[in-house]
Amino acid sequence: MWTIGVADTTFARIDLGGIAASTVEENEEHARVVRYTVPGVKDLPVAAKRLFGQGCDIVIALGMPGKMPIDKQCSHEASTGLIAVQLAEGKHVIEVFVHEDEGADEGELVEIAGERARKHALNALALLRGRTELTAAAGTGRRQGKPDAGPISVVY
Amino acid sequence: MWTIGVADTTFARIDLGGIAASTVEENEEHARVVRYTVPGVKDLPVAAKRLFGQGCDIVIALGMPGKMPIDKQCSHEASTGLIAVQLAEGKHVIEVFVHEDEGADEGELVEIAGERARKHALNALALLRGRTELTAAAGTGRRQGKPDAGPISVVY
Amino acid sequence: MWTIGVADTTFARIDLGGIAASTVEENEEHARVVRYTVPGVKDLPVAAKRLFGQGCDIVIALGMPGKMPIDKQCSHEASTGLIAVQLAEGKHVIEVFVHEDEGADEGELVEIAGERARKHALNALALLRGRTELTAAAGTGRRQGKPDAGPISVVY
Amino acid sequence: MWTIGVADTTFARIDLGGIAASTVEENEEHARVVRYTVPGVKDLPVAAKRLFGQGCDIVIALGMPGKMPIDKQCSHEASTGLIAVQLAEGKHVIEVFVHEDEGADEGELVEIAGERARKHALNALALLRGRTELTAAAGTGRRQGKPDAGPISVVY
Amino acid sequence: MWTIGVADTTFARIDLGGIAASTVEENEEHARVVRYTVPGVKDLPVAAKRLFGQGCDIVIALGMPGKMPIDKQCSHEASTGLIAVQLAEGKHVIEVFVHEDEGADEGELVEIAGERARKHALNALALLRGRTELTAAAGTGRRQGKPDAGPISVVY
Repeated sequence: MWTIGVADTTFARIDLGGIAASTVEENEEHARVVRYTVPGVKDLPVAAKRLFGQGCDIVIALGMPGKMPIDKQCSHEASTGLIAVQLAEGKHVIEVFVHEDEGADEGELVEIAGERARKHALNALALLRGRTELTAAAGTGRRQGKPDAGPISVVY
Repeated sequence: MWTIGVADTTFARIDLGGIAASTVEENEEHARVVRYTVPGVKDLPVAAKRLFGQGCDIVIALGMPGKMPIDKQCSHEASTGLIAVQLAEGKHVIEVFVHEDEGADEGELVEIAGERARKHALNALALLRGRTELTAAAGTGRRQGKPDAGPISVVY
Repeated sequence: MWTIGVADTTFARIDLGGIAASTVEENEEHARVVRYTVPGVKDLPVAAKRLFGQGCDIVIALGMPGKMPIDKQCSHEASTGLIAVQLAEGKHVIEVFVHEDEGADEGELVEIAGERARKHALNALALLRGRTELTAAAGTGRRQGKPDAGPISVVY
Repeated sequence: MWTIGVADTTFARIDLGGIAASTVEENEEHARVVRYTVPGVKDLPVAAKRLFGQGCDIVIALGMPGKMPIDKQCSHEASTGLIAVQLAEGKHVIEVFVHEDEGADEGELVEIAGERARKHALNALALLRGRTELTAAAGTGRRQGKPDAGPISVVY
Repeated sequence: MWTIGVADTTFARIDLGGIAASTVEENEEHARVVRYTVPGVKDLPVAAKRLFGQGCDIVIALGMPGKMPIDKQCSHEASTGLIAVQLAEGKHVIEVFVHEDEGADEGELVEIAGERARKHALNALALLRGRTELTAAAGTGRRQGKPDAGPISVVY
């Protein structure tokens, strides 16, 4: 039985946490989801830390940084903090950030967000299964929220 | 009974700490506010650290970075430090930064600042009540100091 | 009796450390100053660390970053390190950086530098006296090296 | 017998991990390779941490950051994390990042990537052999994935 | 007897480590130099860490970041790591970075590099002698690799 933390924000305009939680539940019966909701992405690192303190094996941290330069700075600070948590705990935090300027319009943003949250929830499950679970896909240009880039045919 | 640290600066041009402190006191009778005032935002991380050392359950850190590039750098350093404190303590620091270039004029800046300090003081209280206290509002596009962006209607 | 570390650099073109040291000595008879001089601002974090190791209660770290982009990067690294020291020690380091491009000419730079070093030395003394020593001035737009911005009249 | 961690990503479009692993195996019979595959470069720091936890003497961390500004930010966060892991463990992580905008076309990118992964795998083996193994080549302008820049003839 | 670590890179195009090592040996008979050569500047922080593990009292870390934006990012990551090592060890690392775009041509670059490596090797020796060894030169505008800027005459 795995315990999977799902940390999300009230700042996001799409229910990323709900999508991740339901993806986990639909794809792994031996998983328990623990939710944690914070105001914004900069609050996610300590939420992840606290989720590990409650026994989580992995955390999925989801947020939607805005489109202004200051928002990029915030997402950078959040990402740096999420990496620090992982190193302190020795456990993965899968970051699922959807930047508001990624989509041409709201419809596209919703598509990107949904697909990214779902695929990264599956990545979290894969990482729990073992360090080589994704090795067959190493170097194959996988994307989350955009079409896969695919592998470059090695021509040499 | 909760102990809530309020760390603010003499650099700020608005009494953000006072607004946060009175918001806490008006909304939660079982809360004690501990104040700490420092010169500028880069002094806030260690102030937060010391407030936790005095038994605070959460800290609200408030400041007003200036509008020059060097000020953005300072706020970045301060934010990074505030995240480091949170990870070391396993407790939330709610950052309330109002950038001097956010408002078209001083009147607008005052409105943004007041609203942001009040809403984030309420966020601090919510986080103290539990990790899912804000989950009903997850992904709903809440803002502090600006009108809520609101949720994007999921169209798929 | 307080022990106050003063860390400065040979890179700076103004004797910032001397100004800070004499300001401390003129304003607080119960203070002992411990000097530490390093080549440049990136050497200040470990100097502060070592000054705390020698019993300092607070450290004033002074430097003059140059005007080129690489200098801004150096000052950013130094500031980040100074915040890390503070969090490791639970004690304040008052950073007094004077950027070479802050003054229109050398005369103005000297004025800014002298005033900033003096005012921040006084800030260091205030912080030693207690966490609310500066609270009366919270949100009042104090500056060091430039005229105070003053508080914005709250109009709501 | 050395244990060499090879951490790579599914985001990369070239099998960098495979190239590094086979280079190690072809050049050092007393080496055992342990693979770890994660979604993207920001997941590499904790993968390296976990590989050290499994007894690795060194880790080779390989990834292909994209060409957008946000990708540069991600690679910066990943690199910062990889340095943090090294300092926590006291062991080397050889970072092999190939930026998508390094090659004029996919063919050139494949050449750069292959050569960089191979040369850095050899660098990892050299570092395992001792701290002065590369000293004969110090200051000689070695490159990985591009032609060596070579030493500048000292003319003074 | 002091033990002085000299960490350098194969990426550099000038034998910075050799210059630093011989400067140390020519100027301090009670010093033993321990060399460590790594591929690039991002490998220097852990090299410094390991040199301290072997008993070094101070480390001189030398490298030549390239001229592209990604190179500036690498040098920033390296510098941040070098500061982290210093704080963990409580000992100085003197960073000697020569940026490839500092010189108008290779001849000037060689001059800058040689002078910087020599002067910073002397700075390392000064720091070992004590925290006020450089205080007489505080605020005097010393440079390494460029002419000294000199002190600004204090006119107030």
